[in-house]
Amino acid sequence: MKLATLNTGRDGELVIVSRDLSRAVRATEIAATLQQAIENWDELAPRLEERYAELNEGRAEGAFDLEVESLHSPLPRSYHWADGSAYLNHVQLVRQARGAEMPETFWTDPLMYQGGGDRFLAPTEHIEAVSEEHGIDFEGELAVITDDVPMAVTPEQAAGHIKLIMLVNDVSLRGLIPGELAKGFGFFQAKPASSFSPICVTPDELGDAWQDGRVHLPLTVHLNGEKFGEPEAGPDMVFGFPELVAHAAKTRYLGAGAIVGSGTVSNPDADGGPGKPIADGGVGYSCLAEVRMVEKILHGEMQTPFMRFGDRVRIEMFDRQGKSIFGAIDQRVVKHEAR
Amino acid sequence: MKLATLNTGRDGELVIVSRDLSRAVRATEIAATLQQAIENWDELAPRLEERYAELNEGRAEGAFDLEVESLHSPLPRSYHWADGSAYLNHVQLVRQARGAEMPETFWTDPLMYQGGGDRFLAPTEHIEAVSEEHGIDFEGELAVITDDVPMAVTPEQAAGHIKLIMLVNDVSLRGLIPGELAKGFGFFQAKPASSFSPICVTPDELGDAWQDGRVHLPLTVHLNGEKFGEPEAGPDMVFGFPELVAHAAKTRYLGAGAIVGSGTVSNPDADGGPGKPIADGGVGYSCLAEVRMVEKILHGEMQTPFMRFGDRVRIEMFDRQGKSIFGAIDQRVVKHEAR
Repeated sequence: MKLATLNTGRDGELVIVSRDLSRAVRATEIAATLQQAIENWDELAPRLEERYAELNEGRAEGAFDLEVESLHSPLPRSYHWADGSAYLNHVQLVRQARGAEMPETFWTDPLMYQGGGDRFLAPTEHIEAVSEEHGIDFEGELAVITDDVPMAVTPEQAAGHIKLIMLVNDVSLRGLIPGELAKGFGFFQAKPASSFSPICVTPDELGDAWQDGRVHLPLTVHLNGEKFGEPEAGPDMVFGFPELVAHAAKTRYLGAGAIVGSGTVSNPDADGGPGKPIADGGVGYSCLAEVRMVEKILHGEMQTPFMRFGDRVRIEMFDRQGKSIFGAIDQRVVKHEAR
Repeated sequence: MKLATLNTGRDGELVIVSRDLSRAVRATEIAATLQQAIENWDELAPRLEERYAELNEGRAEGAFDLEVESLHSPLPRSYHWADGSAYLNHVQLVRQARGAEMPETFWTDPLMYQGGGDRFLAPTEHIEAVSEEHGIDFEGELAVITDDVPMAVTPEQAAGHIKLIMLVNDVSLRGLIPGELAKGFGFFQAKPASSFSPICVTPDELGDAWQDGRVHLPLTVHLNGEKFGEPEAGPDMVFGFPELVAHAAKTRYLGAGAIVGSGTVSNPDADGGPGKPIADGGVGYSCLAEVRMVEKILHGEMQTPFMRFGDRVRIEMFDRQGKSIFGAIDQRVVKHEAR
């Protein structure tokens, strides 16, 4: 099943989207919002699935042509947005670029930060930034939405609480990160509002690409219209989503509608090297920080700049038939003007 | 005006509470929940104030005797819970106890972490913890609730977005903090669900105790029925709430219902010393970590244990006439049992 949210007000309106993303139908009589649906998932999901079948078969009353620009992030806001960093190649690169070792425990204990969920960006909304000096970057990721998760669940139990999957652009302000991390309390100003793919899907939509709590497909990232990365999201994800959800729930209950992200998708080379740009025959990257670190490691200095006002990033995932699964996050960076 | 939320379902039901906390009346016809009220504050606050006046004058239809046990935290969940650490005495003590200097920038750039807002504890709900080994601690604090805050506001502008004030118990698992902070991403498992005072109030309720964006009254903390601390919340708060809200909004918009906390209330001695226990004539503390650090500094070792299952903490604030302003957070620690 594929779901989305019309961009109308703070929580929008839940719609069911056809498998090919061309058509949609309001879910109003089942659930007004995705938050409401996820809070009553066991009861409502079968009814939503029924409408989804009708929509795909062209017999859903009230169906309309879907325009992706009319959609907000599936949850326009969330009470819990936690982002892991499960692709350790990314973490190793960051550390290698500054000459630091990665602790052994990073292979067994996931990195995760708590983000702000009060006002996500829509998938095609401009990214407002105060200054280019903040080092504006995108991070292409996957994320899951859970229902209510009990405290201290095992990864096996957590797997059953993963109800929906989507893409993320975890916007990052790299220039603010060193100062914030040095203070010891983690990211805050360096992680402004994220955006999510226009469509979220139930795991069964991914077929056998959903395995071991990972999505085994490449994530496609374009920067200003040129392919920037196509890293595989499956094999190098050291912690699967069930492990990440269990980590988040270790000392607390998670409320329905909690979003847990994967961290920047990143692949090392087959020979263990740091990965190569698309132009050099590699799979590229899903954030600018990574290509900059590779440049530093290989050439001694960072060459690629961070995003400038007007730059555009597009993040999408295609199935093995080349069809877009989630629709595209497609955003331009603009200068914040006080209103 | 004083507001509270009946503990019925995920968002509860908004009630208006009399100044003396004895009576309440449902706000249903004005706003079903506090979240709804804060999203439409300019329009709804005058109507809530009107009902509040009626309630205080004993002429509100449908009023009932208030039982604090029936209340949830004012916002049972929030899309944005950010906690500052504005009492630098607390920060200095932590650092001094481990022999580290506090950076000069801490006096100008607030510490703040992002917390999880999906499932706050009710003010009289048990604190479930997996293990005493996690180092269970309370932190007595103040917090404000804002309406929509634009990106990059000044502290002067931020002040106008502070609509409600309440107390917090920022439950902390001290045993998990060193490991998490060493990973560099800040707190996560170490900061499980917080609870808030049963009643939140508009700034005008505090009279001249609300000055410079600070609450100039002592915060009273009892541990197992004995007074543990009565530190002054006003003078040693290095950053007022307007500065904290502006810090939170530096690179993003804050959605209505955002909660920003002060950090653990803490006073140094008049002579600049680290503060003394109540028994030694001091004002005591609002968390266990602090008395332990003072013990370490003064006596070379920590003596006071963290909370054990069955221990009880009570956090309250009285006006200059000795009347409770917000009602009490009053919680017992219990062992988490899988359900």
